Amino acid sequence: MQYPNNIKKQPQKIISYANRGMLLEDCINETNEYYLETNRALIFKKPTPIGISKASYTSHGRRIDEGYFLAPSTLDYNGLYKGYYIEFDAKETKQKTSFPLANIHEHQITHIKKVLEHGGITFLLIKMNNFVYLLKGSDLIEFIETNQRKSIPYHYLEEHGIKMKEQIRPVYNYLDAVDEVYFKGEDYKWKRKS
Amino acid sequence: MQYPNNIKKQPQKIISYANRGMLLEDCINETNEYYLETNRALIFKKPTPIGISKASYTSHGRRIDEGYFLAPSTLDYNGLYKGYYIEFDAKETKQKTSFPLANIHEHQITHIKKVLEHGGITFLLIKMNNFVYLLKGSDLIEFIETNQRKSIPYHYLEEHGIKMKEQIRPVYNYLDAVDEVYFKGEDYKWKRKS
Repeated sequence: MQYPNNIKKQPQKIISYANRGMLLEDCINETNEYYLETNRALIFKKPTPIGISKASYTSHGRRIDEGYFLAPSTLDYNGLYKGYYIEFDAKETKQKTSFPLANIHEHQITHIKKVLEHGGITFLLIKMNNFVYLLKGSDLIEFIETNQRKSIPYHYLEEHGIKMKEQIRPVYNYLDAVDEVYFKGEDYKWKRKS
Repeated sequence: MQYPNNIKKQPQKIISYANRGMLLEDCINETNEYYLETNRALIFKKPTPIGISKASYTSHGRRIDEGYFLAPSTLDYNGLYKGYYIEFDAKETKQKTSFPLANIHEHQITHIKKVLEHGGITFLLIKMNNFVYLLKGSDLIEFIETNQRKSIPYHYLEEHGIKMKEQIRPVYNYLDAVDEVYFKGEDYKWKRKS
């Protein structure tokens, strides 16, 4: 097929506005879809648990007529990567100098400790000052246990976290950061259990 | 402390009615709570995903005024055991001679294949003829791929599945069956990623 002569090729300006104003959660959901399509990992956001106070039955099935969102007792995302169990949460703050620990529920801290104890990979993705950092669960727990502070100073994130590059798609390729932290230079082997 | 003399010790009859009429799902939820308490594993039922068609805000937070249940594209339970990713579903049938494959969604079959490919442990717990069987994901896939049948004959479950014993608590201690199938006599090692 030939293009008509009078259509000039426009110089392509590739400018990503992809993540402007996009919530971190939406970026991560998109990243997970990308991982699913490219078969890199199986990671899903858990549905928010709800409490149902009124329900009825319709021709389309059971309908919720009144419900409330419940607080989750685990982290929002979990799944399978390179044979490992992975679980994490995405947190955002508008604070400039420190990340308030009030963003993490007490039962989530307990859960992070348990995931570490049982041999899983767990971390937080924290968006702050327009950057996203991967902070290992073990670093988070260590910070909490050795400090009386109610927030994590930004410089701690800069020192201990992995700062992620923004890309076109996926915007935050967080498994590259996971590779850097957990699988770097390692001849990891997982045995497939069938 | 002394008991008064006139109270005679009654002979103890321990009869479990625990699972009479109890749905398999409820039994499994109870088993998972037990595993959490005894710190054997971290396994949770995923909340059923819902679609919200009307919502409002109240003093208690966001309220769902109309919602529907959506079909899950993965299995109902997942978590972490002995450093491994584990995902499974609980299915029940009143059929006596075979388990209808219509009980398993097409996208769930696809998902089971992916979990196997990525090195996770995946299986079904099938309740049939008052027994619960653990059927390995790989056996399920092999059956589907080598048969044209629309149901799994009961004798296939008896031959390939692990029949579980009923107990007082937890009623179905399915991780014992997991040990038998996946970790038997094996010096498994998982490396904790911190």
